[in-house]
Amino acid sequence: MRRSLCLVFCLCLLWVGSTAHAHRNQPQSRRIGMVIHGGAGTILKSSLTPEMEKAYRDKLTESLLAGKSVLENHGSSLDAVEAAIRILEDSPLFNAGKGAVFTADGTNSLDASVMEGKSLKAGAVAGVGHIKNPISLARIVMEKSPHVLLTGKGAETFAQLNGVKLVNPKYFFTERRWEELQHEKELEKKGLKENMRAAGFSSPEDRKYGTVGAVALDETGSLAAGTSTGGMTNKKWGRIGDSPIIGAGTYANNQTCAVSATGHGEYFIRLGVARDIAALMEYQKLSVKEATETVILKKLEALGGKGGVIAIDRNGNIAMTFNSEGMYRAYLNPEGQPVVEIFR
Amino acid sequence: MRRSLCLVFCLCLLWVGSTAHAHRNQPQSRRIGMVIHGGAGTILKSSLTPEMEKAYRDKLTESLLAGKSVLENHGSSLDAVEAAIRILEDSPLFNAGKGAVFTADGTNSLDASVMEGKSLKAGAVAGVGHIKNPISLARIVMEKSPHVLLTGKGAETFAQLNGVKLVNPKYFFTERRWEELQHEKELEKKGLKENMRAAGFSSPEDRKYGTVGAVALDETGSLAAGTSTGGMTNKKWGRIGDSPIIGAGTYANNQTCAVSATGHGEYFIRLGVARDIAALMEYQKLSVKEATETVILKKLEALGGKGGVIAIDRNGNIAMTFNSEGMYRAYLNPEGQPVVEIFR
Repeated sequence: MRRSLCLVFCLCLLWVGSTAHAHRNQPQSRRIGMVIHGGAGTILKSSLTPEMEKAYRDKLTESLLAGKSVLENHGSSLDAVEAAIRILEDSPLFNAGKGAVFTADGTNSLDASVMEGKSLKAGAVAGVGHIKNPISLARIVMEKSPHVLLTGKGAETFAQLNGVKLVNPKYFFTERRWEELQHEKELEKKGLKENMRAAGFSSPEDRKYGTVGAVALDETGSLAAGTSTGGMTNKKWGRIGDSPIIGAGTYANNQTCAVSATGHGEYFIRLGVARDIAALMEYQKLSVKEATETVILKKLEALGGKGGVIAIDRNGNIAMTFNSEGMYRAYLNPEGQPVVEIFR
Repeated sequence: MRRSLCLVFCLCLLWVGSTAHAHRNQPQSRRIGMVIHGGAGTILKSSLTPEMEKAYRDKLTESLLAGKSVLENHGSSLDAVEAAIRILEDSPLFNAGKGAVFTADGTNSLDASVMEGKSLKAGAVAGVGHIKNPISLARIVMEKSPHVLLTGKGAETFAQLNGVKLVNPKYFFTERRWEELQHEKELEKKGLKENMRAAGFSSPEDRKYGTVGAVALDETGSLAAGTSTGGMTNKKWGRIGDSPIIGAGTYANNQTCAVSATGHGEYFIRLGVARDIAALMEYQKLSVKEATETVILKKLEALGGKGGVIAIDRNGNIAMTFNSEGMYRAYLNPEGQPVVEIFR
């Protein structure tokens, strides 16, 4: 009797011990997090009808919730970023995918990039005109090619080899963007035609800075970032902005943060905005908010550039920093609820 | 007599004073500095004939001395970088300009970029096939367009608008590079054809990492960097490497350093190599040597990438750091004499 009591006692001890051990090794319930943007620029309350504002708010919410759903179902931050951006690309409201602005040639030329913080793997495409969801092609470049950046017709050949159907360029057509191009061309004719330098700057800001992007933190503590754009209205000469440039428009590193930018791309390239935010966190131990403010409110401002970034760190702290009038943006608050903001 | 003596004395004092003042206000005789590279890779003493080694050494010396001559004649670091790189582009020895490798389509697709440290202005071109000196077109993009990066046919249209003559693609042909392409295609046929991932990696290192670049410090204390390349033999899908990417293959900032990279471009993009070296100097106060060693010998090595960088800081300290077998390189020593090195 004493022996069997002793045995039961020992088994109980073993059971308690192993349970405690299992508990210690279980991953902590981490905070997931997500921020998206739909472009920055001269977005004023007075320039949006209530109907338009509602349309933007609804679409941003839909995109954010698509990402949230992925994260809540144990998906990766990369999956969440892709899911959220596809919804913005498919909407004619934003300058990416359907609804992209027109180049000077009257075509659409789309750029996108994606980066995974745990592996530092990245993929990007630039100057594609037949890809419905450039963000997904950027991901395929990352996962199925040895390259980071593919461009033009070559990128589309690669897409076909990987089962991506090309779409008729008519898919991207929207009346609004077509009229913007005609307006730009009128302006150019009227006096800026001879001045190539000025021509590149003649667009109203909201047509120049529209871009969409997302950053996310998943339950494994891994970060991802993605950005997609149609570039500038009336753009010429195969111009590529910061969106497909890793380190300028997009960056993710699990040691620091994930960043997606929107704005006057040339300035973002020259400063290496996304990479610099990560560097300030890594080397100067700034918070994600301090780092984005240093780069956008000080460095970008000093250089004369306009735009903004969204960023998230590995603890789920977020930043949405811009020096333009507004930035379409949405994030999950600490309770996991979507919050949409547009103006300053 | 006393009066005139007094006047002479006073004038003498004035003269001495003004000379001393002028002397104090004169710019200090600053140290000029320059480093160039002609690519990194599996460059072994055993793989070069004495004649070939001499040819490389002579051309590197000629390029470096062209840059030195600009600097000694009060030219800018930007002028020096352009002059040095044009000589390497014009030589069939290096994978840039004449002598560029062939794409899978049997064409030449050239990339280049340049950056000025005092203004943080930058220019780049990618995927051009009719430009004799892509480095000079990159500079024109920087100086005469509102953009940083122009690509493909659009970049060539811009070139023509700015008086740059297009050359017949035959200009770039060299028997050696053509045979390398045939060899690559043979290898691909033999077993790697189905494996797109491997295909991108099938080149011997020295055909993959060839690139030329230069960094310089002028007498005003201003830095500049430039890089030019033909990319990878047998490259496909409009692939763009790190050479035209500001922050990856090229960076210059008078606060820190000027950097030009050569190597397996995808890794350089993912790490943002050139921008990271500048960040380590700015935020962690590393020397240019410590910063390049941290990024190339630690970070690049850890990620599995191969290649190297040349860099110079605003005091003329230089670094030439690589984790490959060799790197074609040359620099001005403290006495202003050219020193050429190839192997480890």
